[in-house]
Amino acid sequence: MPSPASPPSRIRIEKPQPSVDCGRYPPKRVAGDLVEVSADIFRDGHETLRAVIRWRGPRKRRWHEEPMHPIDAHQDGVRWAGAIAVDVPGVWEWTIEAWVDALASWREELRRKLAADQRDLAGELAEGIMLLHAASARARDSERRVIEAALATLEDEAALPETKHDVALGTELAAATARAPDRSQASTLEAPLRIDVDPPLARFGTWYELFPRSWGGFQGLRSELGEFAALGIDVLYLTPIHPIGRTNRKGANNQLVAVPGDPGSPWAIGGPEGGHEAIHPDLGSVEDFERLVADARAHGVEVALDFAIHCSADHPWLREHPEWFYQRPDGTLKYAENPPKRYQDIYNLNFDCSDWRALWDALREIVRLWIARGVRVFRVDNPHTKPFGFWEWLLSDVRERNPEVIFLAEAFTRRAMMRELAKLGFDQSYTYFTWKNSRWELSEYISELAYGEEREYFRPNLFANTPDILSEYLQHGGRPAFEARMVLAATLSPSYGIYSGFEHCENTPVRAGSEEYLDSEKYEIKQRGLDGPLLGLFARLNAIRREHPALQRFENITFLDTTNDALIAYAKRAGSDLLLTVVNIDCRHTQEGLLTLGSELGLPDAFDVVDLLDGGRYEWRSGGSRNFVRLVPNERVAHVMAVEGP
Amino acid sequence: MPSPASPPSRIRIEKPQPSVDCGRYPPKRVAGDLVEVSADIFRDGHETLRAVIRWRGPRKRRWHEEPMHPIDAHQDGVRWAGAIAVDVPGVWEWTIEAWVDALASWREELRRKLAADQRDLAGELAEGIMLLHAASARARDSERRVIEAALATLEDEAALPETKHDVALGTELAAATARAPDRSQASTLEAPLRIDVDPPLARFGTWYELFPRSWGGFQGLRSELGEFAALGIDVLYLTPIHPIGRTNRKGANNQLVAVPGDPGSPWAIGGPEGGHEAIHPDLGSVEDFERLVADARAHGVEVALDFAIHCSADHPWLREHPEWFYQRPDGTLKYAENPPKRYQDIYNLNFDCSDWRALWDALREIVRLWIARGVRVFRVDNPHTKPFGFWEWLLSDVRERNPEVIFLAEAFTRRAMMRELAKLGFDQSYTYFTWKNSRWELSEYISELAYGEEREYFRPNLFANTPDILSEYLQHGGRPAFEARMVLAATLSPSYGIYSGFEHCENTPVRAGSEEYLDSEKYEIKQRGLDGPLLGLFARLNAIRREHPALQRFENITFLDTTNDALIAYAKRAGSDLLLTVVNIDCRHTQEGLLTLGSELGLPDAFDVVDLLDGGRYEWRSGGSRNFVRLVPNERVAHVMAVEGP
Repeated sequence: MPSPASPPSRIRIEKPQPSVDCGRYPPKRVAGDLVEVSADIFRDGHETLRAVIRWRGPRKRRWHEEPMHPIDAHQDGVRWAGAIAVDVPGVWEWTIEAWVDALASWREELRRKLAADQRDLAGELAEGIMLLHAASARARDSERRVIEAALATLEDEAALPETKHDVALGTELAAATARAPDRSQASTLEAPLRIDVDPPLARFGTWYELFPRSWGGFQGLRSELGEFAALGIDVLYLTPIHPIGRTNRKGANNQLVAVPGDPGSPWAIGGPEGGHEAIHPDLGSVEDFERLVADARAHGVEVALDFAIHCSADHPWLREHPEWFYQRPDGTLKYAENPPKRYQDIYNLNFDCSDWRALWDALREIVRLWIARGVRVFRVDNPHTKPFGFWEWLLSDVRERNPEVIFLAEAFTRRAMMRELAKLGFDQSYTYFTWKNSRWELSEYISELAYGEEREYFRPNLFANTPDILSEYLQHGGRPAFEARMVLAATLSPSYGIYSGFEHCENTPVRAGSEEYLDSEKYEIKQRGLDGPLLGLFARLNAIRREHPALQRFENITFLDTTNDALIAYAKRAGSDLLLTVVNIDCRHTQEGLLTLGSELGLPDAFDVVDLLDGGRYEWRSGGSRNFVRLVPNERVAHVMAVEGP
Repeated sequence: MPSPASPPSRIRIEKPQPSVDCGRYPPKRVAGDLVEVSADIFRDGHETLRAVIRWRGPRKRRWHEEPMHPIDAHQDGVRWAGAIAVDVPGVWEWTIEAWVDALASWREELRRKLAADQRDLAGELAEGIMLLHAASARARDSERRVIEAALATLEDEAALPETKHDVALGTELAAATARAPDRSQASTLEAPLRIDVDPPLARFGTWYELFPRSWGGFQGLRSELGEFAALGIDVLYLTPIHPIGRTNRKGANNQLVAVPGDPGSPWAIGGPEGGHEAIHPDLGSVEDFERLVADARAHGVEVALDFAIHCSADHPWLREHPEWFYQRPDGTLKYAENPPKRYQDIYNLNFDCSDWRALWDALREIVRLWIARGVRVFRVDNPHTKPFGFWEWLLSDVRERNPEVIFLAEAFTRRAMMRELAKLGFDQSYTYFTWKNSRWELSEYISELAYGEEREYFRPNLFANTPDILSEYLQHGGRPAFEARMVLAATLSPSYGIYSGFEHCENTPVRAGSEEYLDSEKYEIKQRGLDGPLLGLFARLNAIRREHPALQRFENITFLDTTNDALIAYAKRAGSDLLLTVVNIDCRHTQEGLLTLGSELGLPDAFDVVDLLDGGRYEWRSGGSRNFVRLVPNERVAHVMAVEGP
């Protein structure tokens, strides 16, 4: 094997963070974050190193630099860190450049020898003079003057050794040479790393899901915008707004056959009026929609659409592009199935068909069209039944042109697949939250998401219910169950949501053992309004969330020790903002217990807390002391307490 | 962004193991291992997948395949595994290929529909017929016959549906189609992964370090080979055997000036007789050396050389290649320094000099020369003061031509650098073992190496002492300290070593607070022989190690719970071979305590153990029960107990 073309760089830059899968996927941040980046930086021998982060913003050409410094003596000084302020959404790039600071090494050598009383340093000074001449050639005028002045002394045979040593070790010279570094032999990472910076809404927001047809369409929603905003809603998520097929339309409670007047499922997309580009005539016009989106934005509310990639039997594409669908050998198109279940009102698209490029382009055009109409948030129906490659392509395409757009993945599937979708670009994801109801299930699952690999790329959106999921816990727990789950969702995660009806404590399943709602809004129109009994709690929680940075991140959680498994407790901290939450998850019984605060929270032995839900004040203790908690389901299901500082 | 050239593969293959730094470095195994490889393999939708490992041996062209199977229901069935038997040293390559088994998916669909009593399956059968025709075209004759026979039935309009269903779901057809898969759309890893397979000695062996000049040179060593072998020594590691410089030669106890008769340090390499290619005239000739190596091998002992890349003041390269060294501006060469320390008898090489290629080549030639003379093991002096790039190049070059050669890195330095050297190719590494003497230090450190990232690429060689390291523990502990540390080294790691003198309990430092030996063999010749009091224990431990596979791996350790910090205890298991070791690390006092065995070892509540050191038999208990241990330093410092099966 021949020796390499030039000596490989001797400086190693290893384990750069943040990083996902060794740089294959970008970790996620939001605009406004200060991103700490770090790496192991080391070289053989004892030379002094310097390092900078080089970064550039989305679609920019120019690289900028930030200094890096060694941190953490335990790591033997090999770990270096710096920070990048990411202020706009888009894909940011960064790398590290490290080099030997020969002059700093030289000064260190001099310092040590002088400290050991070695006096004959003529050789060392001669080396330094060579380095300083080279630095002078690199330097700008102001630095050059300082360096040349130093050289004059060092090269002056009449100057005393002590004088020369002082000049060599002087801070002025050190500062000047630091500004004229020799980076010609610098090492960098093999390839820059990326950071996916999203709008702040990608991390933090309250979501409210509704069926527009139950609210009087777009005009009806416009008239409620003030109330939606007052409740603290950030995202109004609309179930699909497109024309609904008639063939094989499902009736109330998913009856196989509809009767006249049954509106059908909004997910059975497409009819004579059009497909994914069109609007159901009962909801309003395109102008009505665009006005709704603009007005909502003026109220601080984003309208989210449901992007569901499948077609009803009446969708225009079945006629115009039959080749985009699955066909039987006899040429008939296949409706969706998960054997033995049949979904006769749904036709899936074949992403590997011979005309796949046109299909992929058509789907991208749909998304672009709705973005052009003002939409910045999409909730995606069942992305895990469509190819990863399609999503990776579509999401990066949208990110490049519209980095302010957010995609939420509704994928209730295998963990590996949920992770994959998040890695390749979904900004938020539904989770297993609705099925985690016991203390241990919930704390274990949230801890995994907060501390494990997902923390860099997976943003949980804790919906407490959906039109498809009415959990057993909610079915049997009465109002306290709804209150408890709402407090949990709102305080465990910066992004959470409810599907309208939750605030009315709707809890009747279609049959025992099912998670489907009786008389599900999927199949019939309801008369909805903002009058549910839990809206007060909802508004209060949303106000607390906006006032407290501790609730605006996911990974800053510590679960706390309680003596009663019916009481789940956790601390969330951001800087000086520290919230302690305790929830009684037993809907039927008063529960009492002791909550121990160890030293890890750094709290004083005694401190005051105020319950943000009802204003109650208490004195609590830390340092291993135990605090008594008693929660009565019909009085209060939870404490959400702010620690009064300092 | 235009759509990609072809639809990207829909199958994801993620997290392949074993892997180091996402494939940048190869994990390590030894010849004879069965390597379990695994990965997450998944795809959108519900299709049945198949996967194989594709592998090829060192420098082979042909790829072979092994099947993979899904494992571990907890992983949602996404984790697949298989195994590769690596039988020869060298760099092995492997990848994974995964594809959709459309016929298996089809059979699953049929099965489910029949189970749900759906009977009109004409469309499904028609699809299967198309798939079977394609399979037939791919199949070899024996499979084709089976497939065509099935098709005859399926296409026979007169055949009963039940008959067709039976044929479609029959095992004969399934087996035939499994042997004619459609792998045209298969996914693979982006690039094959490597495994560095080394000779078994790279993992498991007992090392004995000595100064040949104290044993009568090569002839003297040859005459002792029978005893070395009988003691269970696998590697005889010789300190440097090259000519020693005279200029600035160090005297006894590292005196700055030698007196006539002082032999100098073997690491001051190079003299009139030659440099790294030559042999010190007092040790013997090249023929003597080659005979020693061959005879040793015949006794099952490998001779290891010390490869120290630096030169004495008299090394020929200083005259022949002054440009390979560091020079002061006045042209004089710089000896080695770690300011303020000066090493006037050592000159370091400048790996970045303008003639670096010739230097690198010359160093490689040295290694090749000694390999040609029979050497298969090199202990490398201070590799962390030479560039990583040089080692990466040299080690991969040697591995390609001589995969049976092993390199041990003697790098006592920052952890990140020790890891880096191991990753880039050193087969074994010295560790911090000599400085880990308390129970908690030792168990923590060993656990890190056994369970952390190092387990895939870092092989610890636990030398209990070296000519440079006489630890405080050994200085003050008397004979029991030596016994304890020997037992620990020999039972904690498959590779361990002692430097001759250890078996004599040599424990006098040159001054209080130093780790240097008084009258160090580095600077004077001693009269050595195999007559130390600890050789009995040494031989017994080496015999135990050879009889017990549990001691031939590193990562298979579990530390055990004892009630006394003077007693360190651990279990090592390989299959049915289970050893429990307890060591009293208090050299002065009898220590007693209780050792608890939990359920994790899977032991029965009561079982017999035999102490392999002295034959003592005991009945021990598991399942949370506590076992009494009492160790008296001058009687026995340790129990090394084999659990009697079943």
